[in-house]
Amino acid sequence: MQRPIITFLSDYGLADDFVGVCHAVIVGICPQACVIDLTHGIPRHGVRAGAMILQATLPYLPVGVHLAVVDPGVGGERRALALRLADDRMLVGPDNGLLSLAAVEGGGVVEAVDIGHSRFALDPVSASFHGRDIFAPVAARLAAGAPLADAGRPCDPDAVVRLELPRPRRGDDGVLIAHATYVDRFGNVALNVGLDELGGPGAAGDRVELRPASGATHRARLVRTFGDVGPGELLIYEDSYRRLAVAVNQGDAAMRLGLAVDDELRIRLT
Amino acid sequence: MQRPIITFLSDYGLADDFVGVCHAVIVGICPQACVIDLTHGIPRHGVRAGAMILQATLPYLPVGVHLAVVDPGVGGERRALALRLADDRMLVGPDNGLLSLAAVEGGGVVEAVDIGHSRFALDPVSASFHGRDIFAPVAARLAAGAPLADAGRPCDPDAVVRLELPRPRRGDDGVLIAHATYVDRFGNVALNVGLDELGGPGAAGDRVELRPASGATHRARLVRTFGDVGPGELLIYEDSYRRLAVAVNQGDAAMRLGLAVDDELRIRLT
Amino acid sequence: MQRPIITFLSDYGLADDFVGVCHAVIVGICPQACVIDLTHGIPRHGVRAGAMILQATLPYLPVGVHLAVVDPGVGGERRALALRLADDRMLVGPDNGLLSLAAVEGGGVVEAVDIGHSRFALDPVSASFHGRDIFAPVAARLAAGAPLADAGRPCDPDAVVRLELPRPRRGDDGVLIAHATYVDRFGNVALNVGLDELGGPGAAGDRVELRPASGATHRARLVRTFGDVGPGELLIYEDSYRRLAVAVNQGDAAMRLGLAVDDELRIRLT
Repeated sequence: MQRPIITFLSDYGLADDFVGVCHAVIVGICPQACVIDLTHGIPRHGVRAGAMILQATLPYLPVGVHLAVVDPGVGGERRALALRLADDRMLVGPDNGLLSLAAVEGGGVVEAVDIGHSRFALDPVSASFHGRDIFAPVAARLAAGAPLADAGRPCDPDAVVRLELPRPRRGDDGVLIAHATYVDRFGNVALNVGLDELGGPGAAGDRVELRPASGATHRARLVRTFGDVGPGELLIYEDSYRRLAVAVNQGDAAMRLGLAVDDELRIRLT
Repeated sequence: MQRPIITFLSDYGLADDFVGVCHAVIVGICPQACVIDLTHGIPRHGVRAGAMILQATLPYLPVGVHLAVVDPGVGGERRALALRLADDRMLVGPDNGLLSLAAVEGGGVVEAVDIGHSRFALDPVSASFHGRDIFAPVAARLAAGAPLADAGRPCDPDAVVRLELPRPRRGDDGVLIAHATYVDRFGNVALNVGLDELGGPGAAGDRVELRPASGATHRARLVRTFGDVGPGELLIYEDSYRRLAVAVNQGDAAMRLGLAVDDELRIRLT
Repeated sequence: MQRPIITFLSDYGLADDFVGVCHAVIVGICPQACVIDLTHGIPRHGVRAGAMILQATLPYLPVGVHLAVVDPGVGGERRALALRLADDRMLVGPDNGLLSLAAVEGGGVVEAVDIGHSRFALDPVSASFHGRDIFAPVAARLAAGAPLADAGRPCDPDAVVRLELPRPRRGDDGVLIAHATYVDRFGNVALNVGLDELGGPGAAGDRVELRPASGATHRARLVRTFGDVGPGELLIYEDSYRRLAVAVNQGDAAMRLGLAVDDELRIRLT
């Protein structure tokens, strides 16, 4: 028999007991579950970063219950949701946009339940830790086979909160204006454009100018991977999630270019 | 068949292999164990922080073997213990106070064994890594069903080292003098007082003055959760472990008030 | 039935989704696997630190598939390998020296396979994340019982890339010149010499002079463990992997002595 899968993403970090207690709650309810910690390093309150990571990684995750908690509005008005997607995955988390990109990735929402007052929740429910008290126990019950409809009140699948994302555009001078969407621990900066928008695979090897809002222009090469440029040199490449990204071979591109999430980056083939 | 549960708390951090090697030792001895990492982010040598986290989370942990290692005296005179509690949980760790609060939470110690020279330990036992060489293998053997009495020499359940904790008090002027007991990664500061001591649920909505030892007085509101005040505003609330805590909505209260663990905080309803 | 073991070491850190996605890929291929995170805190591109940790911990790891990814040359010319050792362990990772010390520890390589174009890899294989696309799926398939020969093309077991390690030596004046090989999160500094080279167990209690390249001479005591010196005092001791190490009781020796990995340390019994 297959063990039911729960993946777990949050901004809880690993310095405190938040993640461990959620694991304990899950195991207490669904001892046979296989819980995969996708990451708990989402920046604090980084709803959009969480949403993008969940979307990008979804194709690599076994079908199961995907628990996601980045929840600056905990205890307030925002709804708590459990969703079934067209591809049979289930998403559990706050209704603040966090689930919206993965929902699209999974083919759209086919069933939505408001779990704000779920009978599967712990009792009492605290005002500040719904990960432990609502989201983890609901995810565990669903993984254990409970029907989604039993998790709460049905609600409109189309009413899931969506995210506003910055969109790349063309400048007057033909330059491509992209945005940083994620900076990983190596300082690699993912952008909201793909290789096609820069000219496709045929453009590889070309020289590129990168200009962050801060001003200075940097030269980089459009290549396949880090080792295609010398140590300390800038590159732009298609990253492992098929987005364009900027890196420094054995260095830190975010620091070099002074880029943070949402910053504009002007890209020009030269 | 249920898998035996081992929860694991330490100050080992995740930068090195300490935690991973303990997992490996456990799996080698008890392959069917489900090991839950409660947290390894206890501040280095933070016996009291570890003790408080273990106590606070215990009600959320499935009954099992609760391994805890914060051990500044490793290799020295302190005893190594395995304990059975009244609620049938077992605790394994150094006898430096780390286990004492959880022992009370679990109804008290009903059986205590000194495992300093346990036959379940690895051979040889190093002088500096008893987590790997004594505590993890003893926990694994107990999880696998070995009788507690076989783990070492019986000792007096009442002789477990207790912690001295600061106690809240009333100032001459009626002010409540509490102490910071824990600061989480969001900068939320847990205190050693409950809502009752500040006037109970009826006091909610009231205005509060907070004065840390450093001097300046801060105004806060006594509310249910973060979103009940504006972004950047101070609140005091009953946290998810039912202690009073100070926070800044979408900010860092420890930094704002200059508070660290053990610091006094004077609280006055206004 | 025993669950197959996969241990996993990398420099991916836990801030991003790298480790979580590799877990997801493994579970998707081999749901029954028990995956042990040995550590993901190897310093970025720290091939040698990774190699040393894998070697030192190997005797504590259940026999299984040992996945290791510290891969500065990803996407470049370096080979990708799966190895069977004389003790029946399997190693999977890049051929940059990372596997070489563990290979010796496990009795040497008896079968080697180049998995650079493995049929077990995901499709497509990205240029920058072979952990997810090649190493994790190959490890999972091997853990699930696939024959090593099916994982790729056979290659010469003797051609595995080896590491150059600094070697301790004697100075003209009889001083022992060692090197720092690892600094843990407590600031304890492991050296590339054992107790025998300093005079064996009989030397315990002796006074020692430590002189880092930076100049100043520090006095320390050769003792069994931290508590054998006062708080804040320097000690040198046989660590839990039976190497000599320098520490400060309840302090940070790396900071005190200004030592980083590879730095020389001159040691003299006085």
